[in-house]
Amino acid sequence: SQAETSDSAKVQELSVYEINERDRGSPAYLRLSQKNDNSLGDLVPFSNKLYSGCLEKRVGITSGICILIQNKAEKKGDKYEAIYSFHFGNYGHISVQGSYHTYEDTYLAVTGGTGIFEGVYGQVKLHQIIFPFKLFYTFYLKGIKDLPKELLAKPVEPSPSVEPSPASKACESHAVISGSID
Amino acid sequence: SQAETSDSAKVQELSVYEINERDRGSPAYLRLSQKNDNSLGDLVPFSNKLYSGCLEKRVGITSGICILIQNKAEKKGDKYEAIYSFHFGNYGHISVQGSYHTYEDTYLAVTGGTGIFEGVYGQVKLHQIIFPFKLFYTFYLKGIKDLPKELLAKPVEPSPSVEPSPASKACESHAVISGSID
Amino acid sequence: SQAETSDSAKVQELSVYEINERDRGSPAYLRLSQKNDNSLGDLVPFSNKLYSGCLEKRVGITSGICILIQNKAEKKGDKYEAIYSFHFGNYGHISVQGSYHTYEDTYLAVTGGTGIFEGVYGQVKLHQIIFPFKLFYTFYLKGIKDLPKELLAKPVEPSPSVEPSPASKACESHAVISGSID
Repeated sequence: SQAETSDSAKVQELSVYEINERDRGSPAYLRLSQKNDNSLGDLVPFSNKLYSGCLEKRVGITSGICILIQNKAEKKGDKYEAIYSFHFGNYGHISVQGSYHTYEDTYLAVTGGTGIFEGVYGQVKLHQIIFPFKLFYTFYLKGIKDLPKELLAKPVEPSPSVEPSPASKACESHAVISGSID
Repeated sequence: SQAETSDSAKVQELSVYEINERDRGSPAYLRLSQKNDNSLGDLVPFSNKLYSGCLEKRVGITSGICILIQNKAEKKGDKYEAIYSFHFGNYGHISVQGSYHTYEDTYLAVTGGTGIFEGVYGQVKLHQIIFPFKLFYTFYLKGIKDLPKELLAKPVEPSPSVEPSPASKACESHAVISGSID
Repeated sequence: SQAETSDSAKVQELSVYEINERDRGSPAYLRLSQKNDNSLGDLVPFSNKLYSGCLEKRVGITSGICILIQNKAEKKGDKYEAIYSFHFGNYGHISVQGSYHTYEDTYLAVTGGTGIFEGVYGQVKLHQIIFPFKLFYTFYLKGIKDLPKELLAKPVEPSPSVEPSPASKACESHAVISGSID
């Protein structure tokens, strides 16, 4: 049974950077609570750019929504429930759901995928570098075949100063995966 | 492990039509971006009717939300992140998440299900026939027992002129599955 | 294959109470339809407290959103599509999606999880006790290792008069699981 085998299933690690280059009109902070402080009722649709962990390839976009759950004054931050997808051009996408805290790392659930990610399950670690512009994710993926090498290059260690390569920022053909990545 | 068996798991195809008969107040286009063009910030809750692929049976409803990600002027359309479910009366439901583009076909992830769909995984192809009123879906489902025959009748080839049978539109008892389908 | 083994996978039952103690500003009913009656277009972000089925331990919170699909005047209630998570402190979380009807029990799909719930699938029964303040859930979980005993104590039979123990309401250290549960 899967209950017995889940633990022994092969885990593949996939690292990506999510970067907000302030050119997509994102995030859209909808203050639907109509309160002065961030409060339950506020919704935050967003979409950012995705780069490979090695920062040499533009690999797609994120898209989805954050639901404000609670302002944590003592942490100087917010707790959100986040529901979104990582879209990797022709490779397909991965959908996730879980906590996003602006002041600490969290894990989110991988809820499904398409293309090379069809049948995927597992979790993803969200590591915030510069709120809300630069995040680093490490996926722990099960249930899928071996990932393509261009997604698996050794990641750059996360730090505030990391930047995608100029070629990948410019979406030069050798520095972008195939398919629509925007 | 599932990593080894996923590829060999039995795939069941399930076809349905989603039709907006303009009698459910759907979609509700919420222009929360407060911009003139469709923009990030806009949200679109919706619920439409579902018919079997053979168009002889009313099988339920869709319900969920589309999150506007990007207006693509050059495609004369929009990109959405879609999060919704297909409800099949007493049979249970299937939840999905992924891209919805108004101008091209996409695949969405199957994220879970209930009833006969408990434990389901896989993906679904979304084929738009007439925006936004008529869509055709082909599910590729794994992890579940054999589907009931009334859901598996041979689908009608998608075209703009296809219509559900009058009996299924009228929800006559022989042309509707059991349970609440509204 | 999982298609063959899913039925035989070990099922673990997990019971929890979700209680709205009116101290979290929840729910936030967003009347975005701008209609007098609850209508498609309305959105309801929410977050409530979670207690173990035995009502002796505070175990976390729910957080997510309900999408109003249809007002059912004849049932004196509403149909929602619900997308949310159950957060269990250091244990991790479970994400779910499906129907929430204010007038009857429903099943929702388990779409994924983290921590001890990594790789989880299955479904959950939602039983409403007092709308919208007290609900009882029974999860039927597959794909995970044996759950910890403190989550599995025998549940109190649901009834309108049930209340969490004073110690768990007060989050006394012996009556709360470890990690952030708020």
